[in-house]
Amino acid sequence: MADRTALTGGPIPGTVLSIDAMGGDLGPAVVVSGMAKSLGKNPKLRFIVHGNQAELARLIERKRNLTGRCDIRHAAQAVRMDEKPGLVMRHGHDTSMWSAVESVRTNEAKVAVSCGNTGALMLMSMLRLRRIHGVNRPAIACLWPSRNPHGFNVMLDAGADIRADAKDLLQYALMGVSYARNGLDVSRPRVGLLNVGTEDHKGRAELKTAHDLIERAAPAADFRFIGNVEGGDLPSDRVDVIVTDGFSGNVALKTGEGTARLIRELLDEAFRYSPLSRIAALLAYTSLRRLSVRIDPRRVNGGVFLGLNGTIIKSHGSSDSTGVAAAIGLAARLAAADFTRHVSTRIADAEQAAATTIHADAENPQ
Amino acid sequence: MADRTALTGGPIPGTVLSIDAMGGDLGPAVVVSGMAKSLGKNPKLRFIVHGNQAELARLIERKRNLTGRCDIRHAAQAVRMDEKPGLVMRHGHDTSMWSAVESVRTNEAKVAVSCGNTGALMLMSMLRLRRIHGVNRPAIACLWPSRNPHGFNVMLDAGADIRADAKDLLQYALMGVSYARNGLDVSRPRVGLLNVGTEDHKGRAELKTAHDLIERAAPAADFRFIGNVEGGDLPSDRVDVIVTDGFSGNVALKTGEGTARLIRELLDEAFRYSPLSRIAALLAYTSLRRLSVRIDPRRVNGGVFLGLNGTIIKSHGSSDSTGVAAAIGLAARLAAADFTRHVSTRIADAEQAAATTIHADAENPQ
Repeated sequence: MADRTALTGGPIPGTVLSIDAMGGDLGPAVVVSGMAKSLGKNPKLRFIVHGNQAELARLIERKRNLTGRCDIRHAAQAVRMDEKPGLVMRHGHDTSMWSAVESVRTNEAKVAVSCGNTGALMLMSMLRLRRIHGVNRPAIACLWPSRNPHGFNVMLDAGADIRADAKDLLQYALMGVSYARNGLDVSRPRVGLLNVGTEDHKGRAELKTAHDLIERAAPAADFRFIGNVEGGDLPSDRVDVIVTDGFSGNVALKTGEGTARLIRELLDEAFRYSPLSRIAALLAYTSLRRLSVRIDPRRVNGGVFLGLNGTIIKSHGSSDSTGVAAAIGLAARLAAADFTRHVSTRIADAEQAAATTIHADAENPQ
Repeated sequence: MADRTALTGGPIPGTVLSIDAMGGDLGPAVVVSGMAKSLGKNPKLRFIVHGNQAELARLIERKRNLTGRCDIRHAAQAVRMDEKPGLVMRHGHDTSMWSAVESVRTNEAKVAVSCGNTGALMLMSMLRLRRIHGVNRPAIACLWPSRNPHGFNVMLDAGADIRADAKDLLQYALMGVSYARNGLDVSRPRVGLLNVGTEDHKGRAELKTAHDLIERAAPAADFRFIGNVEGGDLPSDRVDVIVTDGFSGNVALKTGEGTARLIRELLDEAFRYSPLSRIAALLAYTSLRRLSVRIDPRRVNGGVFLGLNGTIIKSHGSSDSTGVAAAIGLAARLAAADFTRHVSTRIADAEQAAATTIHADAENPQ
């Protein structure tokens, strides 16, 4: 079987990442552990770590492999998980989250990682990094365990914005293609538009328009458009990038996670049911372990904010050190690929192509 | 463990169901087998069976327990699975589907079951049965395997209409409550509104309005409104009825099915991986079998069309005889509960209550 952890590949050359150490539910110790863990695969990483100076210095001292690899930036406050994004802005500039985004804005770090409040992180990132020229709505891209050889599909928007018009959906397609190429090494990604049926005429009006826009953009942007896909295709191997609005994307993501969690729990129950089934569980240990790794949500930890002048990765609020390490591994990979620049170029090219088409249409009226 | 097959409960007293025998992918033999199977649990059922007279007579003759329980109605044509609903109407009245709906319209049967083309079935049902007075958009309700003691949650709309405004969502709540009460024996169902977060202020404008409308209707209609729920709550035990528009509902349904299918396949692979894991699979056979039954989509087969003057059940196009029998079991249960009448009463009461509120508001302006 091929190595499914395509995300981590070989070691990444020296690069600097910005880490919000105070954001998650489990506190900075877990984040620092995750940093130490991630060095195992990418020994040349360096970190700018944001949060309480004294606490972080103590935690980092305990992890020998972090010595000389961390630059601590003191931040007096942390954004709480339940704070409303708008209210956070009142004391925003004193927080570790703000400081972490700031290191990306000033180009000291290429990518920032935070386990904090998603809404606040998105709002801060938008305010400080600003949108790429030509992008109307930024999106959050997530990875979906799939039957594809690289082990994952990309889905976006996973919930940055509850609305998306046809042009937004086209931009999601372009940004998602760039992510699949740089994050998953898929050279010519297949793009599908999430809908309630696969026929071309299906769905809401904006989906029909988006269908045409994405189809037209495919040759120049070097991806394949396979048309409409359905919820059942999210884990399939017929598509690499699934495009949808943030409402449907969020519902799909949480439904998929909830279904996987239910089955995992029922499976555990099944194996605890009788002495015989407990023996069976022992015998099947390695096989079940392999399955469990394959569908472990921590492996796909890291929603990537796309469409901003800088790459921000949102790690799950309840991430443990394995989850944090996965998000940092993804950050390292995207930083090494100079991902932000690729996305900007792609959007600029598409804007250019659209302008040329309009120009040509004007010169050659039908 | 409680009996999770709440849907079938004890035997249902004699009642007549209308069966479209020609609709599914697998042909009439599977449908007739399903009818015979369903008699095991409900020995007093009688059927009006629609389709090719000669073929059906031959198939029914082979199943001894069907003798004297079937009334065959000849229909020269069948609706194809890939026909566009609008085009079907041109030859609609010659089809087995049309004839099956007709038996409900004329009150010969209380409920009809078809494995055919969903869009065509919905369009025919709407045209022939017409909507309940006060209902704007009919909905399709589906059952979702859950941690609840009765084993399922109700979700609607699963894809009858890609749009739903606030008043439609309120009606879905009322119809879903009626379904949970009559189909799952939940006396005071808990209703949740599918959204991208649980805070009251989340989501699109129509969802905020729907939140208020449903909250206000809860005491009179005797259900509990628990507010917003997320995709992860679909299989949970904190809610019984999940209300959403047909686009999100369809995406969620297919995402959940796709995720469950992927895990089931990975589990099979895991147990075939090595000689040791194959032995483990043998030892854990009963436990795994129990799990497999619990998440078997055939057990929850049957989308119920709600909001029409008559109850129509859409069985999955690729249903085997077990799936067809499950859909017929559900039909029998709803027929015995006089389900259609309950839904109409509930909608009429709510219309009445809304009118009274408006009247009271007008007399006591704030």
